[in-house]
Amino acid sequence: MNLIQPARPAADELRDRFQAVRAHSLALAAPLSAEDQCIQSMPDASPTKWHLAHTTWFFETVLLQPHATGYRVFDAAFAYLFNSYYEALGPRHPRPQRGLLTRPSLEQVHAYRRHVDEAVATLLDGANADTDWETISPTIELGLNHEQQHQELILTDILHALSCNPLLPAYRAAPTPGLRLASLAPAMRWLSRPGGVVEVGHAGAAFSFDNETPRHAALLQPYAIADRLVNAGEYAQFIADGGYQRPELWLSDGWAAVQAQGWRHPPYWLAPDDPRLVHHGATAGWQVFGLHGVRPLESEAPVTHLSFYEAAAYAEWAGARLPTEFEWEAAHDAPGISQMSGHAWQWTRSSYDPYPGFRPLSGVAAEYNGKFMVGQLVLRGSSLATPAGHARPSYRNFFPPAARWQFSGLRLAKDL
Amino acid sequence: MNLIQPARPAADELRDRFQAVRAHSLALAAPLSAEDQCIQSMPDASPTKWHLAHTTWFFETVLLQPHATGYRVFDAAFAYLFNSYYEALGPRHPRPQRGLLTRPSLEQVHAYRRHVDEAVATLLDGANADTDWETISPTIELGLNHEQQHQELILTDILHALSCNPLLPAYRAAPTPGLRLASLAPAMRWLSRPGGVVEVGHAGAAFSFDNETPRHAALLQPYAIADRLVNAGEYAQFIADGGYQRPELWLSDGWAAVQAQGWRHPPYWLAPDDPRLVHHGATAGWQVFGLHGVRPLESEAPVTHLSFYEAAAYAEWAGARLPTEFEWEAAHDAPGISQMSGHAWQWTRSSYDPYPGFRPLSGVAAEYNGKFMVGQLVLRGSSLATPAGHARPSYRNFFPPAARWQFSGLRLAKDL
Amino acid sequence: MNLIQPARPAADELRDRFQAVRAHSLALAAPLSAEDQCIQSMPDASPTKWHLAHTTWFFETVLLQPHATGYRVFDAAFAYLFNSYYEALGPRHPRPQRGLLTRPSLEQVHAYRRHVDEAVATLLDGANADTDWETISPTIELGLNHEQQHQELILTDILHALSCNPLLPAYRAAPTPGLRLASLAPAMRWLSRPGGVVEVGHAGAAFSFDNETPRHAALLQPYAIADRLVNAGEYAQFIADGGYQRPELWLSDGWAAVQAQGWRHPPYWLAPDDPRLVHHGATAGWQVFGLHGVRPLESEAPVTHLSFYEAAAYAEWAGARLPTEFEWEAAHDAPGISQMSGHAWQWTRSSYDPYPGFRPLSGVAAEYNGKFMVGQLVLRGSSLATPAGHARPSYRNFFPPAARWQFSGLRLAKDL
Amino acid sequence: MNLIQPARPAADELRDRFQAVRAHSLALAAPLSAEDQCIQSMPDASPTKWHLAHTTWFFETVLLQPHATGYRVFDAAFAYLFNSYYEALGPRHPRPQRGLLTRPSLEQVHAYRRHVDEAVATLLDGANADTDWETISPTIELGLNHEQQHQELILTDILHALSCNPLLPAYRAAPTPGLRLASLAPAMRWLSRPGGVVEVGHAGAAFSFDNETPRHAALLQPYAIADRLVNAGEYAQFIADGGYQRPELWLSDGWAAVQAQGWRHPPYWLAPDDPRLVHHGATAGWQVFGLHGVRPLESEAPVTHLSFYEAAAYAEWAGARLPTEFEWEAAHDAPGISQMSGHAWQWTRSSYDPYPGFRPLSGVAAEYNGKFMVGQLVLRGSSLATPAGHARPSYRNFFPPAARWQFSGLRLAKDL
Ligand SMILES: [Fe+3]
Ligand SMILES: [Fe+3]
Ligand SMILES: [Fe+3]
Ligand SMILES: [Fe+3]
Repeated sequence: MNLIQPARPAADELRDRFQAVRAHSLALAAPLSAEDQCIQSMPDASPTKWHLAHTTWFFETVLLQPHATGYRVFDAAFAYLFNSYYEALGPRHPRPQRGLLTRPSLEQVHAYRRHVDEAVATLLDGANADTDWETISPTIELGLNHEQQHQELILTDILHALSCNPLLPAYRAAPTPGLRLASLAPAMRWLSRPGGVVEVGHAGAAFSFDNETPRHAALLQPYAIADRLVNAGEYAQFIADGGYQRPELWLSDGWAAVQAQGWRHPPYWLAPDDPRLVHHGATAGWQVFGLHGVRPLESEAPVTHLSFYEAAAYAEWAGARLPTEFEWEAAHDAPGISQMSGHAWQWTRSSYDPYPGFRPLSGVAAEYNGKFMVGQLVLRGSSLATPAGHARPSYRNFFPPAARWQFSGLRLAKDL
Repeated sequence: MNLIQPARPAADELRDRFQAVRAHSLALAAPLSAEDQCIQSMPDASPTKWHLAHTTWFFETVLLQPHATGYRVFDAAFAYLFNSYYEALGPRHPRPQRGLLTRPSLEQVHAYRRHVDEAVATLLDGANADTDWETISPTIELGLNHEQQHQELILTDILHALSCNPLLPAYRAAPTPGLRLASLAPAMRWLSRPGGVVEVGHAGAAFSFDNETPRHAALLQPYAIADRLVNAGEYAQFIADGGYQRPELWLSDGWAAVQAQGWRHPPYWLAPDDPRLVHHGATAGWQVFGLHGVRPLESEAPVTHLSFYEAAAYAEWAGARLPTEFEWEAAHDAPGISQMSGHAWQWTRSSYDPYPGFRPLSGVAAEYNGKFMVGQLVLRGSSLATPAGHARPSYRNFFPPAARWQFSGLRLAKDL
Repeated sequence: MNLIQPARPAADELRDRFQAVRAHSLALAAPLSAEDQCIQSMPDASPTKWHLAHTTWFFETVLLQPHATGYRVFDAAFAYLFNSYYEALGPRHPRPQRGLLTRPSLEQVHAYRRHVDEAVATLLDGANADTDWETISPTIELGLNHEQQHQELILTDILHALSCNPLLPAYRAAPTPGLRLASLAPAMRWLSRPGGVVEVGHAGAAFSFDNETPRHAALLQPYAIADRLVNAGEYAQFIADGGYQRPELWLSDGWAAVQAQGWRHPPYWLAPDDPRLVHHGATAGWQVFGLHGVRPLESEAPVTHLSFYEAAAYAEWAGARLPTEFEWEAAHDAPGISQMSGHAWQWTRSSYDPYPGFRPLSGVAAEYNGKFMVGQLVLRGSSLATPAGHARPSYRNFFPPAARWQFSGLRLAKDL
Repeated sequence: MNLIQPARPAADELRDRFQAVRAHSLALAAPLSAEDQCIQSMPDASPTKWHLAHTTWFFETVLLQPHATGYRVFDAAFAYLFNSYYEALGPRHPRPQRGLLTRPSLEQVHAYRRHVDEAVATLLDGANADTDWETISPTIELGLNHEQQHQELILTDILHALSCNPLLPAYRAAPTPGLRLASLAPAMRWLSRPGGVVEVGHAGAAFSFDNETPRHAALLQPYAIADRLVNAGEYAQFIADGGYQRPELWLSDGWAAVQAQGWRHPPYWLAPDDPRLVHHGATAGWQVFGLHGVRPLESEAPVTHLSFYEAAAYAEWAGARLPTEFEWEAAHDAPGISQMSGHAWQWTRSSYDPYPGFRPLSGVAAEYNGKFMVGQLVLRGSSLATPAGHARPSYRNFFPPAARWQFSGLRLAKDL
C-alpha cells in the first residue's frame, strides 16, 4: 500500500489551474450579451459560445470519455455541433454555419461547462494511482493549453464581429487612462547576432505542442534583428509613402490581395473621412477600432492586425526583411531585446513546415497541428490577447499569409 | 371651430388596429430567445429583431418625421441599420450582414418600438383636423400592412433559420392534437370557368398596394381550375414517380436548379434516412420540419415550400398547368372552390408585370413595389402564416421562381 | 399511280432555300480565320465553328436519322459535342467549354456540312410520295429557321469575342462610305392607338415557331407608340443626364447590375479616354465598336446592345414606358410607323409567358421554346443582323433582362 | 584597337544556342493546328501561341529595347498583350483571357519571332566590344532559359487543353513501340545518407536563376532516400487501398481539395467505365491520357501529374515522407540513385522560401522569381517535358500545392 501520494500536490496544482483556466474563459465572455456570443462574422472566426462549448467538448472527448469511468455524456448531439476539425471523430457541423446555432442556448452551454467541470474534478479526486495520473495529467494539460488558444480566439473573433457592426461598439470600456506622458518612441536599434549552429525547438518535460519538437540543431548566418516591434507610427509612414500603391514592395499574392480586397491600411484603422466615425466624435488623424472601441492611433504602440503580405511589404520598404523563425528564437534572450512576447505575434519569413523528425501526437490529437503544415507562415512571440503563461520561446503559431484578424505585427531583421 | 369631429371614430379604430398589429409582431417573436431573434440564415431572410426594428423605422420615416411636429428620432444611426432597400433614403447596412447586428440589443429594439408607438399614439390624439387625417391615415394604413407583410416573413425566416440547426428545434410546441380522424382527402374536382372579359385588380376606397391597381379589364379563354390545392400526399406521388429525375417535366432553369442544388424533395421534407432524425424518434415515411418541429407528413395538407419550378413541374406531370393570376382572381368566388386563402400562397403562371396604367405610389413609397417588377412570378391567395385580414382577392404576392422558403404551393388549372 | 407530282415545285423551291440558307452561314463565317471561329468569349456565346456544326447536327438528328433511309452518321461523337440543350437526346458537352473544341477542326466541320447537305439533297430528290413530304417539309423548314437564328448569333457572338481583344479588330471592313449628308434625326412622333380586342399571334399555314401560337384575342387599353426607335444620340443624352447614376430610374435588379458590373454606357461604346483607342486614331466623342470595327457614334442610328434594364431606365427617364408585346404587334402596320424590323430588336414590357392554349411541338422539338418560358423578356421586330425573311410581326424573340450582346434597342410607348 | 576578340567564339556558341532554342519552340508547336495553339483551358495555363509570343516579347523587352541601337518595336500593342506578370512594365492583358486573342494570328506571331530573331542576330554580330558583351550575354542566357521554361509549359498546357476535349486527341502520335519486355519494376531500395553540414545552392559562373543563390551551408539529420521514383503501379495500389477515402493520410487542405474537387485518381487517369473511352477501344484497367493520347497505364513508369497533397498522402500511406529540398540536393550524386532528372519533377517537403542572403536580380528581372516566394512548394529534378540541358541539381521549380497539370511525381524519404 502506497501511503505516500506524490501525485497529490501535482493534482492539487492541476485542479487549481484547471479551475483558473476554465473560469478565465467565462470572464472573457462576461462583457458580451447572449446575442454577441452567438454570431459568426466570417468562416475563419467562431462565435464566443461555440468556443465555450468546443473547449468543453474537447475535455469530454479526449479526457472524460476514455478515462472517467461511468461518465455520462451531457448531450449526444454536441459531438456533431462542437467538433472543430477532427476527421477521426466523424462528421460535424459545417464551420461557416456555426453562427446559426442559437440552440443550445448560452445558458445550456454554461450548464454543459459545469457538467464537464464537475466530472473533471471528480476524475482528479479519484486519480490516485500512478498509472491513471500518467495518462490523465498530460491530457488535461493539452486541454488547458487548447482552451487558452481559444481564449485568444474569443478576443480576436469578437473584435472582428464587432467591427462588422457600423456602430463599432466596444468589447469593453477602456480603463480610465492614467496620465499619458508625451512619449517619443525610442529609435529602433539593430542587434547583431552571430551565425553558427543553434539548438531550436522545445526540450524538457514541461508541456509543449508537438509542432515545437523535436529539438534540433539549425544553422544560421550572421544577422541583425530589431530590438523592438515596428510601431503604428512607423507603419503610418509606410502608408503615407504610398506603400499600398507600389507593387514592387509586395509579394505577388500580396499585391493581388491588395487589389482584390482594396486594402489601403490595416483592417481596423479608420481614415478621418470614414462615415462610421460620425457618431464617435473623432478628430483628425487615424482612428483605430479595438477591444476598447474607437480610439486615436497610438503611434508608439506596435502595429497589429497585419497580414504576412503587409508585414513583408513593410520590411521591403524599410530596406530590411522578416527574421526566420530560428533567427527569432536564437535572439530570444539577446541583451537589449524587448517586446518578444505579450504585444503582438510576429510574422517570420518561415513557412510552417515540420521539424526534422517531427511526429504528431497519437490518437485524436494527431490532427492537432501536423495536418495544417502547408500554406501557412510561422508567427512567434505572443500578443496582448494571449493568456498569461501560455506561450514559450519555442512556441510556433501559424496562420495563412492573408490572415489579418489576429494581433499580428512584425519585427525587422537583416543580413550582416 | 369644428365641434363635430367625424374622424374620431375612425381614429379610434385605427389606434386599436395599430396597437393590435404592433402587439402581434411581439407575440410572434415571444417564443424566441434573443439569440434566435438575432441570426440570419441566408441573404434573403432577415433576423426577427431586424424585422421588429425595420417596421418601426418605417413608421418613424414615412409617418413621424414628416408629420409629427417635434418628433425626436430615437437613434440617428438606425436609419442606416434598418432601411431595407429605399435608395432615396441613402446608404444602408448590407442585407447579407443583418445577422451581425448584435447591437442594438433586443431590449433596445423593444425600447425603440415603445418610443415610436407612443409617438404614433400622440400623433393620433392630436390629429383632429381633416387635413392632417387625410395624410396620416393612409400612411398608417400602409405602415400596418407593411408590418403585416413582415409578420409573415418573421415566421418564414425563422423557420429557415431553425432548419439550419441540426437539432431541428421547434419554433413553438404543437398544440395538443385533438382526435385525428382517419380522413381521406376528397378527390380534387375541376371547376369549369367561362372565358370573356373580366374585371381584375383592386377597386374602391379600402386599402390596397399600388401593384393591384388600376382595376382593369382582362380577357380570358374558357378554363378549368381545381377546387382545392395540391396536397402533400399527391406531391409525394410525384416524387415517387421520379419527378425530380425527369427533365422533360421541368422548365430549363428549373432543371438547372434541380441539378445544381441537388433538389430531391421540398426543402423541409426529411427522408427516413436523414441523419438529423436520430434524436427525433421518427418512424418510416416522410417527416416534415415545420413551425412545430419535426412531424410526420400529413398527406391531406396542402404541399408548401415549393419553388415555382417545382409547382410547374408538378402541374406538367399531372397533365395540367398553373392558372394565370387573372384566371385565379376570376375564380375567387366560384361555387365549390376552397382553400383560396389561409393555407398556402399559390404560384400562378403569370410573371410579375405592371398592370396597364400602373403608377407607383409617390414619395418614398414609390420604391415599395414597382421596382421589383421583373424576374418574379405572381402568387395569389395567402398562407397559414399570413396575418388575418391582410390579404385580398386582388392581392399580388411575388417571389423569384427559385424561392422555396415561403409557404408556397399550387392549384392546378387546364384549358377547356 | 400518281402521275402528277404537286410537291415537286415546292421541293425545288425548298431545295433552293436549303442551299441558300446553308451557303449563307458559310458566307457569314468567311471573313473569320480558323482561330476566330474556334473561341468562346462567354458562356452565353458560342464559337462560329460550333454554330456551323450544331445547325448541321440539327438536320442530321431531326431530319436525316428518322427520315433518310440508310443515312450514315458522319461521326458518332458529334451528337455529344454539338447537342445544345436537348435533354431527350442525352448528355452533351458543357456549354461553357465549347471554345475548347479545337477538334474537330474547321475543315472537318466543313466536311460534316457537305456530308449532311448531300444527304438532304438526296432525301429531297427521293421524296416524291405525299406522305414523305408532309413530314419532311416542315422539318426542313424548322431546320432552316433554326439555322437562321444561329446566323444572327454567329454575328452577335463574334462581335462579343472580338470586343474582348484589346486590339478591337473588325469583323469585316466597312464598305466605302457614300456621301453622308449632314442629317438631323427627325423628331420622334407619338402615334395614338385605340384600345379594344385585337388578334395576336401567328395564323395561317406558313412557318412559325410554336411560341407564337395559338393566335388569340388580347385586350388593349388606348396607348401611344413612338414612330421610330430611340437613337444613339438620344441615349447619349440619357447618359449625360446622369442616367447611370440615378437609382430612381432603374428597376431594382437593374440598379444592382449597374453597380455590380460597373455599367456606365452600352457595352460597345468607348469613352474618349478609353486606352484601347490609342491605336485607332479616334478623336473626341463617343466611339462605338461594331462589326466594322471602331467608328464614331452615329447619333441617328438606333441605339443597340441595351439590356432590358437599360431600355426600361431610359424609358422612365423619358417619361414614357416600353410597349407590351401586344401593343407592339397591334401597331405593326400603323400608318407612319417605321423601323419595326431590320434595325434592332425591341425590348417589350412583356415577360416571356406562354400564350393561352400554348402547346409545344412534339418530339425533340418540344424543347425548342417552351422550356425557356420563365425569367426572360420578349423582344419584337428584328435587327440588322437578322437574316432577310426570317422574322414576322408575330415573332417572339426572348432574352434574360441583363443580356447585352444582341442588337437590342427600344421603342417608347405611353398610356393615353 | 583590339585585334583579339575573345568573345567571338562565345558569341558563335551563343548564336547557335539561340537559334536552336528558338527553333525548338516552333518544333514543339508544329503538331498543333492554329486552333489548337489559340485556346486556353484554365487560367493557370496559356495558349501555345501566347507562349511563342511572350518569350519573343521577353527578348524584345529586356534585350533589344535597352541594348540594340535603333531597334524598331514590331508592334507597340504587343507589350500589353504579351507581358505576363511584370508590374514594372505597366498594365497587361488579363491572364484568364489569353485564349481570346485570335489576333494577332499565328502567322503574325511567327513573323514577330522572325523579326526579333533577326534583330538578336544583328545584335550578336555587332557585339564585339567587351562592355557590350558583358551585358548582352547574360541577358540572352536569361532569355533562353526563360524560353526553355515556357517550352515545358507549352507541353503541359496543351496536354491540359486536349484533355478537356471529350475526343481526347493526341498531341502527337506515339512512335512505333519497340518490343516491350514484360518487365517487373525492380523493388525500391532505401539509400542511407549521413547528416551534417552540406553546401547547397548554385555556385560558379554558369547560368542559374536567382532563386538558387546564394550557395550556403545547410544542416541535415541522417536520412534515407529512395533510389527511384514512385511508379504508377505503386500509386494504383494506394488508390485501391482507399487512399482517396482516408482523411488521416492527408493534409487538411489536401483533404478539402479531395472533397471539393472530387479527386479519385490523378487527373489524366481514366477508369475503365469512363464514357470517353467508348471510341478508344480500351480494355480493362486504368487508361492514361498523355501526349500520345490514351494508352494503358504503364505500371513501371513514374507516376506524374500529382499535386503536392497527393504526393504527401502517398508518402504517409507508404510509412515514409517527402525529402526536403536539401536532402534531395545532397543525395543528387549518391551511388545507386536514379531517375533524378528527365522523368518527373519531384515534390519536396520544402516550402519555397528565400535562401539566406537571397537578393533578386535587378531591373525587370527582379520580378522573375522572388515575388512568388510564398504559398508554394519546391520541386526538384526535371521531367520528360523539360528541355535537355535546362535543369541543374540546384534548380528550384515551384508550384502551389494543388497544381496537377505538371509532370510532377515523388520520391520517398524517411528519418534514420
Ligand atoms: Fe480547438
Ligand atoms: Fe419592409
Ligand atoms: Fe440551336
Ligand atoms: Fe515568362
